[in-house]
Amino acid sequence: MVQIQQSVKRPRGRPQIRCDDDTRRLIIEAAAKEFQAKGYAATCIGDVAQQAGVSTRTLYRLIPTKAALFKAVVADSIDGFMLAIDEQVLATLGLEAALERILAEFGRLTLSEETIAINRLVIGECERFPEIAAAFYETAILRISEAMANWLGRQSERGLIKLDDPQTAAGILRGMMIMDPQRAAMLGQRSAPGPDEIALRARVCARLFLEGCRP
Amino acid sequence: MVQIQQSVKRPRGRPQIRCDDDTRRLIIEAAAKEFQAKGYAATCIGDVAQQAGVSTRTLYRLIPTKAALFKAVVADSIDGFMLAIDEQVLATLGLEAALERILAEFGRLTLSEETIAINRLVIGECERFPEIAAAFYETAILRISEAMANWLGRQSERGLIKLDDPQTAAGILRGMMIMDPQRAAMLGQRSAPGPDEIALRARVCARLFLEGCRP
Repeated sequence: MVQIQQSVKRPRGRPQIRCDDDTRRLIIEAAAKEFQAKGYAATCIGDVAQQAGVSTRTLYRLIPTKAALFKAVVADSIDGFMLAIDEQVLATLGLEAALERILAEFGRLTLSEETIAINRLVIGECERFPEIAAAFYETAILRISEAMANWLGRQSERGLIKLDDPQTAAGILRGMMIMDPQRAAMLGQRSAPGPDEIALRARVCARLFLEGCRP
Repeated sequence: MVQIQQSVKRPRGRPQIRCDDDTRRLIIEAAAKEFQAKGYAATCIGDVAQQAGVSTRTLYRLIPTKAALFKAVVADSIDGFMLAIDEQVLATLGLEAALERILAEFGRLTLSEETIAINRLVIGECERFPEIAAAFYETAILRISEAMANWLGRQSERGLIKLDDPQTAAGILRGMMIMDPQRAAMLGQRSAPGPDEIALRARVCARLFLEGCRP
């Protein structure tokens, strides 16, 4: 017994070779899986630490609460989308191709099994844990909505589209693209759409929207 | 004690003056309130019967299971919408006014506090009770989607709009109209929109959509 404990403890003496950012990444990946599988209430910080291969103490040092851990998981899932619709990337494309790109990336993010599970978790548990609804709303929904509204506002200023209110238009666009397939998948009535379906839907929505607000 | 029981039992001897349809209505109204307040799992048939002022036996005679009761509540909430977008009503309006009417009625139905509570219930509890997800999907979502797709298909046949796929277009339309405000309300980040906001949104969406699929 003593020997086993010693062999488990041995790594303590080694110099720490992993930086905090990498450790944080392992924790967030493990937490995403735990939240998706178990929901918010039933996820245990100890299990996340174990899955990530770090001590609970290290986890708490880097991310101090379960709510902060959830927020970090959501923020992390949005980062890839924000990079993919970076202004410099979009500026190389024409208006319709740029919007198609935004919608396809938005679809890939929000129609994935992972995001659908997180949506279900947030809606199902938000009454018991208002902090996760607020975190999801601010970190995911508002951040994406603002990015889309900014892009739409710029196209409107350039005279390429005619919009009264880019904020409302961004909400309309997001609903066109994802509500129907996302909700059917969230209710277990269909599987998450594949890349071809997402690409086709992005094309249809981009065209309809741009025709709809032609100057 | 015996006297009290007798006085409670007295109505049993009276002739039944309420028809089954009216009793059913009382049960459905009581069930809607219970489901909204307590969710699906925690709603108790006995409480619904008591709130409706009927015996559990009468309730079970008219609606035999909790799943059937839930389906009846959902179906009931859709009936008003179906009447409001009846083909004969819509035929008296121009294309844009008719679509505005459909979207406003759809918004009034789906952006009400009641529907938002039912949506939250279904998404939150569908993994434990797949039967409520199926009931909601078939009785609410598919029925409305079909009605909208049929209307869009007819306008397309008349050459008033150009659509490749009325079914997909109906899903896009529904998402435009409700996703953004419904989700924010479902997450407790805003209150349900009032009639003016719904009417304005219906106007904006109808115009954008019709411009977007002009022949």
